[in-house]
Amino acid sequence: MSSTYGEHLRLTIFGQSHSPAIGMTLEGLPAGEAVDLQELDRFLQRRAPGHSPHATARKEADAPEFLSGIREGFTCGAPLTAIIRNGDTRSRDYEELARLPRPGHADYTAWVKYGPHRDYAGGGHFSGRLTAPLCIAGGICLQLLRRRGVEIHARIVQIGTIRDESPFTAPVADKPFPVSDDAVGRAMEEAIAQAKGQADSIGGVVECVVTGLPAGLGDPMFGGMENRLASILFGIPAVKGVEFGDGFACAGRTGSENNDPFILRNGAVVTASNHCGGILGGISNGMPLVMRAAFKPTPSIGKPQRTVDLSNMTEAEVTVHGRHDPCIVLRAVPCVEAAAAVAIYDAWLCEHGYKE
Amino acid sequence: MSSTYGEHLRLTIFGQSHSPAIGMTLEGLPAGEAVDLQELDRFLQRRAPGHSPHATARKEADAPEFLSGIREGFTCGAPLTAIIRNGDTRSRDYEELARLPRPGHADYTAWVKYGPHRDYAGGGHFSGRLTAPLCIAGGICLQLLRRRGVEIHARIVQIGTIRDESPFTAPVADKPFPVSDDAVGRAMEEAIAQAKGQADSIGGVVECVVTGLPAGLGDPMFGGMENRLASILFGIPAVKGVEFGDGFACAGRTGSENNDPFILRNGAVVTASNHCGGILGGISNGMPLVMRAAFKPTPSIGKPQRTVDLSNMTEAEVTVHGRHDPCIVLRAVPCVEAAAAVAIYDAWLCEHGYKE
Amino acid sequence: MSSTYGEHLRLTIFGQSHSPAIGMTLEGLPAGEAVDLQELDRFLQRRAPGHSPHATARKEADAPEFLSGIREGFTCGAPLTAIIRNGDTRSRDYEELARLPRPGHADYTAWVKYGPHRDYAGGGHFSGRLTAPLCIAGGICLQLLRRRGVEIHARIVQIGTIRDESPFTAPVADKPFPVSDDAVGRAMEEAIAQAKGQADSIGGVVECVVTGLPAGLGDPMFGGMENRLASILFGIPAVKGVEFGDGFACAGRTGSENNDPFILRNGAVVTASNHCGGILGGISNGMPLVMRAAFKPTPSIGKPQRTVDLSNMTEAEVTVHGRHDPCIVLRAVPCVEAAAAVAIYDAWLCEHGYKE
Amino acid sequence: MSSTYGEHLRLTIFGQSHSPAIGMTLEGLPAGEAVDLQELDRFLQRRAPGHSPHATARKEADAPEFLSGIREGFTCGAPLTAIIRNGDTRSRDYEELARLPRPGHADYTAWVKYGPHRDYAGGGHFSGRLTAPLCIAGGICLQLLRRRGVEIHARIVQIGTIRDESPFTAPVADKPFPVSDDAVGRAMEEAIAQAKGQADSIGGVVECVVTGLPAGLGDPMFGGMENRLASILFGIPAVKGVEFGDGFACAGRTGSENNDPFILRNGAVVTASNHCGGILGGISNGMPLVMRAAFKPTPSIGKPQRTVDLSNMTEAEVTVHGRHDPCIVLRAVPCVEAAAAVAIYDAWLCEHGYKE
Repeated sequence: MSSTYGEHLRLTIFGQSHSPAIGMTLEGLPAGEAVDLQELDRFLQRRAPGHSPHATARKEADAPEFLSGIREGFTCGAPLTAIIRNGDTRSRDYEELARLPRPGHADYTAWVKYGPHRDYAGGGHFSGRLTAPLCIAGGICLQLLRRRGVEIHARIVQIGTIRDESPFTAPVADKPFPVSDDAVGRAMEEAIAQAKGQADSIGGVVECVVTGLPAGLGDPMFGGMENRLASILFGIPAVKGVEFGDGFACAGRTGSENNDPFILRNGAVVTASNHCGGILGGISNGMPLVMRAAFKPTPSIGKPQRTVDLSNMTEAEVTVHGRHDPCIVLRAVPCVEAAAAVAIYDAWLCEHGYKE
Repeated sequence: MSSTYGEHLRLTIFGQSHSPAIGMTLEGLPAGEAVDLQELDRFLQRRAPGHSPHATARKEADAPEFLSGIREGFTCGAPLTAIIRNGDTRSRDYEELARLPRPGHADYTAWVKYGPHRDYAGGGHFSGRLTAPLCIAGGICLQLLRRRGVEIHARIVQIGTIRDESPFTAPVADKPFPVSDDAVGRAMEEAIAQAKGQADSIGGVVECVVTGLPAGLGDPMFGGMENRLASILFGIPAVKGVEFGDGFACAGRTGSENNDPFILRNGAVVTASNHCGGILGGISNGMPLVMRAAFKPTPSIGKPQRTVDLSNMTEAEVTVHGRHDPCIVLRAVPCVEAAAAVAIYDAWLCEHGYKE
Repeated sequence: MSSTYGEHLRLTIFGQSHSPAIGMTLEGLPAGEAVDLQELDRFLQRRAPGHSPHATARKEADAPEFLSGIREGFTCGAPLTAIIRNGDTRSRDYEELARLPRPGHADYTAWVKYGPHRDYAGGGHFSGRLTAPLCIAGGICLQLLRRRGVEIHARIVQIGTIRDESPFTAPVADKPFPVSDDAVGRAMEEAIAQAKGQADSIGGVVECVVTGLPAGLGDPMFGGMENRLASILFGIPAVKGVEFGDGFACAGRTGSENNDPFILRNGAVVTASNHCGGILGGISNGMPLVMRAAFKPTPSIGKPQRTVDLSNMTEAEVTVHGRHDPCIVLRAVPCVEAAAAVAIYDAWLCEHGYKE
Repeated sequence: MSSTYGEHLRLTIFGQSHSPAIGMTLEGLPAGEAVDLQELDRFLQRRAPGHSPHATARKEADAPEFLSGIREGFTCGAPLTAIIRNGDTRSRDYEELARLPRPGHADYTAWVKYGPHRDYAGGGHFSGRLTAPLCIAGGICLQLLRRRGVEIHARIVQIGTIRDESPFTAPVADKPFPVSDDAVGRAMEEAIAQAKGQADSIGGVVECVVTGLPAGLGDPMFGGMENRLASILFGIPAVKGVEFGDGFACAGRTGSENNDPFILRNGAVVTASNHCGGILGGISNGMPLVMRAAFKPTPSIGKPQRTVDLSNMTEAEVTVHGRHDPCIVLRAVPCVEAAAAVAIYDAWLCEHGYKE
């Protein structure tokens, strides 16, 4: 099912970039959980546009309106629905794109699949704007997980060809540019500015670390933590690769290099290294769960590009005039945290049930 | 749900390494489809152990017995179940492992999750042997997809640090070592032999290319082709990373480098390049669908490794004496094809329904 | 999953009686389907309160606001979400009920399951008001089904002990009291008026007939048309029994009485009788599909009733002062049509796929 | 999905009447649960044919072979698969039926849906024989539920027009004819014998009572206990109606008659009556959960019946010569218990999770 995720906790996301509203329903939350709206708002602001020189100038309050599921600040057990009105839409910007699909976008595949009645304005249901309801859902799950001792922190580890090789040691969400090594971060910002100056865009990689997760979450085979997380992470637009632990780097190693020895620390079984990223056989092993998502450069660029005019099937040129991020990676950081939070809290509920 | 996959086509895999049998049920197949058992057997032989100097010496006929769903060589519309008896099991090899979890294996997490009654022999339900029923399911889907013009071909593109950078041009499944550049392949075989000689193992990467897929398959957001494929690929043991198109390499590029321009070829819309791997917005665009899966080195190695004795919670050493592959990648090639076939035929049925 | 229904078409219902809004998301609708909002409004008016002397005096415009999934009057392929604002709420009416669960209501079980943070006002998520979003979903499916030759018509066949034994011959939805035999209908109305006069309520039975349904819809075992329909019909509050064809009456017969002989009519295979209600082995046989749902009398009555005060665990008395229907059956008629439409169009899409 | 049931506990049933085997996979069972095979066998014998003068003469050992999921008598956490070989099959009996669909059977709808490759022998996947794997699954769940204080007992309350109106007071499973009032039971047996003597069959009603169920199980709307139970009960062949509590009888009452007052008994909230059958708002209220399923008379009768010859589309006559039950209701009693057990244990796991 396309816009629905989860097994015990069910997330449904709806809306198009220029529909009256976007929103989400989260079903299966236990009753009696406080939802701190100010904390949620701070989380949503990290994703919101208009706050960074690297992001789109489109301004959205992005303040969620809760329609159901919350009563006097607590979850009540009923499905929780929140919406965000789409205010500052300029549909004119997109009219030309109805016939000129933008390279790298879903414009062409949406036309093939849905035909003339698709909502092409602003990318419709495929728009990166739909990560806002994902962040509402994830922001709530983050609060519930934190209460259970689980923390989720993402950071930028690559922009273009510039990598931050430093290990994750502390959360960086409060930094304007969420990277561990600030010197590397300045080089990354420069690379973004350069792409912007050339009416171009640039890709990158987000790493996410989950700490405090008990061993035993996840299921074998198709219900593994990797499957559950990849299944939602690829739902964030522009993600083209997902890896866990050392991921693709593991392929270059021998077993004796890559295996994480079991040792005792304070009487508890831990691993001496964490190449596996906290997951063995799909199940959490109690070590930090580590994942990385590769983001392609935003396909919307100001440079003229080759395309096909679908109205008369001739080759043509398209230049994207809308307001777009030169680098989506910065705003993707909370989205990755949100996606991880939904998947992990769902796995938690599968293990513990509604009466956790 | 852990051992069940699919939306319209539902695959359930059951069995443990040393249970009486392993098997699978495939529900949702249309009736009246011929199943060529000889072709299926040839496909299963590519995964079967005992055929290569690089693979485990455990011998299994791996001949599926069909219990239901097939009548006189054709699917009949009822759930199709096939099993493989577990013959050549040596449970003694594994008794020590009940208390000494092997590093890199699911032994420890299975103990945490399932407790003393878990089936630890040979990895239980986590064993790589469970890819045999996956290949039965995938082998059948491959036949149905081929009939509909869709071909799926995987190959080895990396063993350890040795990479085959040559593009996919033709199927290599018939080669004893399924790689495009045979010179590189010989170096890979040498690397495997070296790992084996050192009682070690080695990882690698499998690439899979799907041709003939029409544009329009897959759904937005969590139902995208990437989500569907990653969700099943991470079900193959040892997979730690999955990418589509140029995957992680996209992160290092600008939009103008990475976008695939739309052009006309024989009147049809195609893309001049295929960095996106045939998927835009989660939906197939008619170009070859390209994915890669990173396999960690087999954790079972003959070298002594540090572990914890779970019977008395002391640090200990474990040496794996069972028969194991020095490199799982070779046998993983048909498994990746099988997983891709199940996911793609499921997406096909979602689009076309039972009355396709 | 509690508030989600469907396999290919996925319906999610959210909201509480006194939350800011109630609504629904319908995912999986094909793109390019016209949605006639006036026709939908006429359908919703049949369920809306305030229109009949037999129904609650609570007034709600019940006009849906579409947030997504529709563009210029046509479905666009994205999830369709519509909401109804909750305007005329009198929460004071319900404050006493927080501690005095009404007999026959979900008040007590909601308290057990969700605890002090449940939304008790007006029955919360359990309120009959939640059938309004069900009717939005069903009203849209009815339009799509009609376009495919399928008609769904429900009628009242029993109120209290008064039964209309006449066969279904023509739709009665346009009648103020939707019954086939108007003389019997007047007696039914009298029974309702009598219950109302005694501050009591009364139950009844709704029958629903689906015509134009092709043979072959539905699946064996748990995917049968009966399973699919019962699974959604029991989601309408107050339904305590569901039967198909002659239902419970079949139990009193012999096989030779109950079997429907196959005959030819205009070259087509039909059955001479229709005791099975158009379903054999869970699959539609091309004859009218017939179902009946038994509704218990509305539990909200003006008479004093025995209950337990949950605040101090003493026996107590409760009198319901809110505005309530003396007979829910009248307004349930379109709800049954709506539920049937969602289930049947879902089965249709399972058979034909998105590209039907 | 047709032959799969459940949310947290997933049951998949496979096989046809005359395929090599029938069987089931049960996924999601907690590890470490003892499975008493002798107790299971006693339960399966209640359903097995060949034991009663009222049942088919087909003899089947019906002894399940466990292929996976059990280790040394305990569940191990992996999917549990058990099969039953189909031994005593006489396919010749059914050859004529390939072209002459039996009235009341799925023969015709299977032909429409699956075409010439359907498995028509013995009803294929639609055969009542497929209730044997349902009973394996249910028999295991019954053991786990009993360990948690939940008992499930079914009985015959109607055969033809003869009803046992006596209330359920004690289990009757050990009786050769499982009815509370033995005098009524003898009349029922006489009615069955009479139907058999006339080469006819007869229907009936099974009631099932669940005791010891805690309040709070089940979910609102489509996840209610009624929805969950009806959804699996209609999967038993021949069920045409399902009701809860007083069911259809509620429709004939006023609210003051039908509402169950809350009272205190030993400090606990109970209801003075149980017209609602232990379910309010879809959620268990702690009182006995009561359901009834109406079975139509077995369609297979020895009398000649009108049908259509599908090979040449002419009207024809068919006489069923196979061995068939004159009354399926007797053997349906354990099937109803099994179906209820699967649904209730699934709801239990949804509430409590894998780590219940």
